[in-house]
Amino acid sequence: MQPTTNGIVTLTTDFGVQDLFVGVVKGVILGINRVATLVDITHGIPPQDIPTAALVVDAASRCFPPGTVHVVVVDPGVGSERRNIALACRGQYFVAPDNGVLTAVHADNPGVAVSLEETVFFRNPASATFHGRDIFAPVAAYLSRGTPLTSLGPTVTGLVCADLPQPTVSSTAIDGQVLMVDHFGNLITNICSAALEALGANVQIAIGSERIAGIQPSYAQAPPQTLLAAINSFEVLEIAVNQGNAAEQLQAGAGTPVRVNISAGG
Amino acid sequence: MQPTTNGIVTLTTDFGVQDLFVGVVKGVILGINRVATLVDITHGIPPQDIPTAALVVDAASRCFPPGTVHVVVVDPGVGSERRNIALACRGQYFVAPDNGVLTAVHADNPGVAVSLEETVFFRNPASATFHGRDIFAPVAAYLSRGTPLTSLGPTVTGLVCADLPQPTVSSTAIDGQVLMVDHFGNLITNICSAALEALGANVQIAIGSERIAGIQPSYAQAPPQTLLAAINSFEVLEIAVNQGNAAEQLQAGAGTPVRVNISAGG
Amino acid sequence: MQPTTNGIVTLTTDFGVQDLFVGVVKGVILGINRVATLVDITHGIPPQDIPTAALVVDAASRCFPPGTVHVVVVDPGVGSERRNIALACRGQYFVAPDNGVLTAVHADNPGVAVSLEETVFFRNPASATFHGRDIFAPVAAYLSRGTPLTSLGPTVTGLVCADLPQPTVSSTAIDGQVLMVDHFGNLITNICSAALEALGANVQIAIGSERIAGIQPSYAQAPPQTLLAAINSFEVLEIAVNQGNAAEQLQAGAGTPVRVNISAGG
Repeated sequence: MQPTTNGIVTLTTDFGVQDLFVGVVKGVILGINRVATLVDITHGIPPQDIPTAALVVDAASRCFPPGTVHVVVVDPGVGSERRNIALACRGQYFVAPDNGVLTAVHADNPGVAVSLEETVFFRNPASATFHGRDIFAPVAAYLSRGTPLTSLGPTVTGLVCADLPQPTVSSTAIDGQVLMVDHFGNLITNICSAALEALGANVQIAIGSERIAGIQPSYAQAPPQTLLAAINSFEVLEIAVNQGNAAEQLQAGAGTPVRVNISAGG
Repeated sequence: MQPTTNGIVTLTTDFGVQDLFVGVVKGVILGINRVATLVDITHGIPPQDIPTAALVVDAASRCFPPGTVHVVVVDPGVGSERRNIALACRGQYFVAPDNGVLTAVHADNPGVAVSLEETVFFRNPASATFHGRDIFAPVAAYLSRGTPLTSLGPTVTGLVCADLPQPTVSSTAIDGQVLMVDHFGNLITNICSAALEALGANVQIAIGSERIAGIQPSYAQAPPQTLLAAINSFEVLEIAVNQGNAAEQLQAGAGTPVRVNISAGG
Repeated sequence: MQPTTNGIVTLTTDFGVQDLFVGVVKGVILGINRVATLVDITHGIPPQDIPTAALVVDAASRCFPPGTVHVVVVDPGVGSERRNIALACRGQYFVAPDNGVLTAVHADNPGVAVSLEETVFFRNPASATFHGRDIFAPVAAYLSRGTPLTSLGPTVTGLVCADLPQPTVSSTAIDGQVLMVDHFGNLITNICSAALEALGANVQIAIGSERIAGIQPSYAQAPPQTLLAAINSFEVLEIAVNQGNAAEQLQAGAGTPVRVNISAGG
């Protein structure tokens, strides 16, 4: 039994917003499901950055109601032999190229995936260079208005997984890294709150030559312009500067190592 | 008697559009009020720039129908002791941190404000770092579907006011300043049309070493690439270059002094 | 008989997304037609770039269902004597200044145009500097809820045409140019697939000092980081680098000449 759709269709892409790409994807969806509610997650995924897309769609989808259809188009292999898929997982649907962008979504729950092969649900003719418009958009629109997942093509397994950097965890330390930098310059790491809690309350965070004592409940607990570490609202360790820009201040970015130790004093 | 909501919820933030923040706020709202109509005013408020947010939400809200709910999230103090509020004012609702972002909205009309304390209307659990998603979004969603303002918490007064730069007005001159620069490089000042009209039709505008004679009805009344002054569509003095970029041409920006004098010849 | 509207209103502008302009246009539309579905094509048209707007709205509109209303606001002459128009063409509506932004839309089909003169359909008062909010938005809203085109003003002909660069076509070669660069650095030319097909399958594309052999069905047919030519999803010749940025690699942009020859070997 697949989840009942709710008519919401979200878009996560690397299209940017300067061109007509996002608009035409929406036109195609509304042409099939006039009452779909369209929500942009972001079109600012760095071009062809599959790991970032994987993390963003996983985190974002958890804030949407059951039955939402999420379209993810970060697709360096468009027109190659890679599969296009639709995945029912965690009570929602995901429509994307099978290139790893759904890795984090199905990490803990395989769900049910189909290969998009029933061309009757594609735009006709479908181009070889813009599957976002010609395959993912119409398929998402049909799903959102109630077309069953299994009508779209044969069930498949063995989805492609992206290589998402994992931290190394011991009983006294976690070695992780910055995954991405947000608009405020906050450094989002791959160290989750559960791993941190296992180390206890007295920890020191090392990034570059900086040492940060303890985890703050929010940015405002540090003086303005001061470096701090916090568990962010997506339950991962974040390094920030209260009312400032940590990425600029530390000259840090995706890939910068971050180490959490139990404090000597702890 | 509070205004009846119309189901429209607008968003004015400093989130940018690269990350998932805007998308997840919308997901939370739609999870509570599936039929809300979501409108982005802008997510390009400079990070933590409360005065700009205050001016933008005031001007923008005046173009929306009665019963609209406006969410404003520019929130450098998130997680501190500052209040979160909802305000009914001018037939609309405003949901925001009590940090001055609503200063211009309630300048001429105090409205009715409540402190957001009824946690049943929050996302559960609510984080200490993302009240946009966990408090403002759900509260706005409940308001938009008819929850009474006074259910959200106790009535409060004495809202925090931002220090919005005011012009100095005499019978022969107005000393103001540029408040912000728009996408076209137009310089938006804090000199309103009513103050200008009191000086009469023959005025000279001084900015930097430039002197501009008179106020034009529109940009097209000046030759292309020529500096001009106009009352803009939000009823304030604007300095522009027809088909050009005044900010670049004058090397001017927020804070640049602007003086209006009665012309010697007038 | 004019097409029946479907309630979708799209926006194509040079407003950017930093300011409140887009938001207030939407507020005005929803104030008149509460159930309109608003879609952003893009607000990233370069300021006052009429040819780019003309190409974007033409291509984008073809992906929307019949009865859609498209608003185009790229309007360097706002407040001058230029007309404002609404055009019914190809089963859709277009609302814009009569400055050439609809040139490509009506190139093959004149449609029926009216001059927007019935001020009862304008915002009151209408400013001289923001017709997007005060004229185009309300007119589009009225159209989208069923107001007949001919109620808006007198029928007009002789719409202003923008000078869109046309290729020179012979039996052995096409001399065209790059029209625009997309977010991925792909170079979009003015050479359409029909003209290319007339040259046959064996062609060579010349841009700068580069020579590209043949047309690929998609980006993925070239090795990563390799230059290629393809017919894109809008049926025009595009020069791209698979998983790279052709504009940067070739230092090419709008106006760069592109020549297609029948190959010596063909």
